[in-house]
This record gives sequence, C-alpha cells and structure tokens, in this order.
Amino acid sequence: MTQIIYGIHPVEEALKSPHLQFQKILIGTQKPHFPLQSIIDLAIKRQVPVTFTTKEILNQMVKGGLHQNVVGFIKETPYADLGEILSNWRKEETKALLLILDGIQDPQNFGSLIRTALGCGVHGMIIPKNRAVGITPSVVKASAGAALHLPIVRVVNIATAIDALKKEGIWVYGASGEAKDLIYNFDLNIDLAIVIGAEGKGIRPLVKKKCDRLFSIPMKGPISSFNASVSGGMILYEVMRQRSIYNNPPSPPSSVGNGFKPFPTGSRGFGNPSSKQ
Amino acid sequence: MTQIIYGIHPVEEALKSPHLQFQKILIGTQKPHFPLQSIIDLAIKRQVPVTFTTKEILNQMVKGGLHQNVVGFIKETPYADLGEILSNWRKEETKALLLILDGIQDPQNFGSLIRTALGCGVHGMIIPKNRAVGITPSVVKASAGAALHLPIVRVVNIATAIDALKKEGIWVYGASGEAKDLIYNFDLNIDLAIVIGAEGKGIRPLVKKKCDRLFSIPMKGPISSFNASVSGGMILYEVMRQRSIYNNPPSPPSSVGNGFKPFPTGSRGFGNPSSKQ
Repeated sequence: MTQIIYGIHPVEEALKSPHLQFQKILIGTQKPHFPLQSIIDLAIKRQVPVTFTTKEILNQMVKGGLHQNVVGFIKETPYADLGEILSNWRKEETKALLLILDGIQDPQNFGSLIRTALGCGVHGMIIPKNRAVGITPSVVKASAGAALHLPIVRVVNIATAIDALKKEGIWVYGASGEAKDLIYNFDLNIDLAIVIGAEGKGIRPLVKKKCDRLFSIPMKGPISSFNASVSGGMILYEVMRQRSIYNNPPSPPSSVGNGFKPFPTGSRGFGNPSSKQ
Repeated sequence: MTQIIYGIHPVEEALKSPHLQFQKILIGTQKPHFPLQSIIDLAIKRQVPVTFTTKEILNQMVKGGLHQNVVGFIKETPYADLGEILSNWRKEETKALLLILDGIQDPQNFGSLIRTALGCGVHGMIIPKNRAVGITPSVVKASAGAALHLPIVRVVNIATAIDALKKEGIWVYGASGEAKDLIYNFDLNIDLAIVIGAEGKGIRPLVKKKCDRLFSIPMKGPISSFNASVSGGMILYEVMRQRSIYNNPPSPPSSVGNGFKPFPTGSRGFGNPSSKQ
C-alpha cells in the first residue's frame, strides 16, 4: 500500500527518516527555489526519483490539503508493535514514557500530539483500531512529519494493552478533569504510561477503571476544558520537567549570584503509590 | 459591524457572555434536539430573536465551516484597551499575567491559544494589527468561544506596548528556542507578560531585544519545535503550576501517608532579575 505525504516540512522530515521507503517525489513547479530545492537535493542523495509536474495535478492528489508544491509517495507507514517499543525502551535504560490516546478523532489534534510526544521523549504511542483516527496523510502533515518517527501501535482493546504494560511494571495514569489530584503532585519520574481521552468525552469508563491513578490539570475561569492536544502538551511538559530536574539537578548558586536556589532532591519522590497490584 | 459565529459550543459560550450583543440566531433545522434546544432556550431567556431556516442557507454563510445547524449574529467583538486590562488586573490584586503573540498567523493556533489563556487566568492578550490573524469567526470557533471572554488588544507596535507594560512594573519574558535558560528555572510568580513568536519564525529581533529575559522549553529528539499553541500551553501551565503551589502550598504528609512532601518555600524566588531598567 502506498501513502502520500505532502507539504515541505513533512516531506523533508520523511526524507530524513531511515525507516521510510520512498517511491517518488512530485514537484508542482518548474522553478523550485529554496526550500523545495533542498528537498530535491535530499531526494537525489537518497536515490528517490523526482518528477516535475504541475500545481493542478498536486491539488487533485491532496484534495484540499496545502501541498506547498511537493507530494511524496511512500510505502504506508507501518504501525509499530508493542513488544518492539518495550524492547527498545529496555535497551535505553531510561524511565518508560508511553502515551495512550483513548479515541482521539481529530487529525489536527492527533498530529499535534504525535509531534509533542516525539519532542518529549515518548517511547511509543498506543491508539485504538476503532473509533479513532489513524495515521492519515493529514495527520502526518499536522505532526510536521513526526508521525514518521514515533512508533505508534494500534490495538483492538486499550484495556488489554494497559494490562500488558502493567505486567512490565509500567504505571498507568489517566488525565481526567474530574480528578481531585493535580498532576504536579505526582512523581512522574517512574516507568509511566499516560492515558488521554477523546475530545469532549474524556477516557471511557472501562479504560478509566484500569488506570492506577487519575490526575487533573489546574484550570481557571469559564472554560470547561483545554484542547486535547494542549492538555497533552501540558502533561508531557510536566513529565519532562520532573525528569529533567531529576537528571540535571540545578547547580548551587554561582558566585555571580543570580539568586538561583537548587530544587532540593528531598522534595521529590512524592505522590508515588505505596503498593501496586 | 456584524460578526457571525457558528457551531454549538461557540454560540452557547457567546450567549453566556454578558459582554456580547446578539442580533439574532439562525437554526438550520426544523427539529432542534438537545443541545440545539438548550441554545434556543438560552436565546429566548436573553431575548435574542431565533429564526428557523435551512442547513443549506447556513452552509452558504459559513463558507465551509462546521456550523452544526446554528449561526449567531453579534455586534463585532470589540478589541479591548490595554489601559482597561491593566486597571482590571489592579482591582484583582493578583500577579499580572499577559500574553503577547508576536505575529501568530494560523486561526487554529490563535483560537487554541485564546482558549488556553482563558483557562490559565491570563488577564489579557496583545496582538499586532498587521501580519497576524485577528478575531475572525474561525478563530472564535477554534477558541471554543473563549475569544468572546478574553480581553484582546490590537496594537500597531508590540515594542511600544512592551514599554508600557514595563512602566507598570510588569516583567516581559520571551519564549525562544535558542535561549539557554529553561522556563522552569525562572520564578514566574511575578507580574509577568509572556511573548510568543510566530509559527516557525519565533519572536522578531526588535521585540526580542525588548524582553527582560528569554527562556526555552526542554525538548528531545529529532523535531525542531513544538506547535505554537502547544508551546503556549506548556508555558502557561508552568506559570499556573508555580502560582498554584505558591498560593496553595501542599499540606504536610497526611496520616494515610501518601509520601507527599511539601514544596519548600525556600526553593522559590530563584531566577528573578536582580535589577530592572
């Protein structure tokens, strides 16, 4: 199966990925300037055939998408395997970080979450096979190409996948607007999978039950929720912040005296469940 | 001038806002069920005329937008005045929090940033009059109606606005991928305005020069940046987190013993500039 991707950034990212097999690249102008020219150079380097055609032909291919005069044909992005993600993580010797999306429907949100996940060091993402958007060309575009780098697993049953993660010693925390515990009160420097629910609906009850803990994000004013991809960004930022401080404790005040005080290691380690089934 | 807004959530939010004057509401079906019916009830309560028409007529009005069978006509959202925002803030007796968007172009990003800002307690937003998207119907929709609640100022010159804020004793910190200092190393529980640059381009050099300090967000892997609305979410979350901990210091470990240790007050107050011009 062939998949098309389009837009300067996604095609450029895809060309940089060693995992993808390109069939060809179409350029929608006879006079490609930078940055199109650098894509052509990259394609030649990777021995990918480049064909010059017209803007109108590309318009038909992307059906209303913004192709920026470049469309790439690649072998369909293969979904990853959960076992593969776990084995890659074990090799890394870092704390696990997985993201479970329980039914995200909007390609923009899904793409944005993939981009954020990749930038926050997520090892892999788990999505359901049904009632959720998959890796479509518009998702690849919305992810700015990150969908071609991040391992994404599609499973029939999210609850079963959660059980598999728990067996590996990975904690599963779910984001829920109704949860009383605020995210920053949890220690997130543990082997962790985070569950985010669908836009407007949240995590489904059966999946919620499977979570070891639920947390919420502080919120003010008249709005009832943050956008799903923004919430995801806040959550993954908080994980990164805690892990970054843990791995790079701030140095003591310098002689220049900027008033910086180190984050005491004693204040970490809170919020960890005392037992795990 | 009349502005149209559409979609269930934006119209519902707008009807709840005391600041908006509705001219009428059009319903694109003869059989409105929940949640359309609750919008009609709300409109009647606010003495807004409701007209029943067809889906096709609404389709023409929103030009491809998703109207969900409801379109509202309101007096154009008035931009706010910087003096008004500052005076509202002074009455509140809280630390100032403003968001300056230096040239956001994408309506989705702008709308999402407005929604996030409202949910994070931002007092007001400043945007440039030129080379940036304004409050259009699609921005209102992307903000889930938040654009009708958050005071937004349009200024000719961002640098001049920054000077005005500085005169009020407000610090101006800019987000920049190149900055060495990570955001969480700054004390953000101060009177603060945060500057976020345009997608892909960042803050313009002249505006950057005006910032008291620049910070970056930690990032990993092969991506070069987060989406602008996601970055904004991470930044505003960090402000909320710090202020929330400051205002509600965690209680000492309970007898149940969840291992939670309070965030020591002594570790705050770092990162503050020692002098301000």
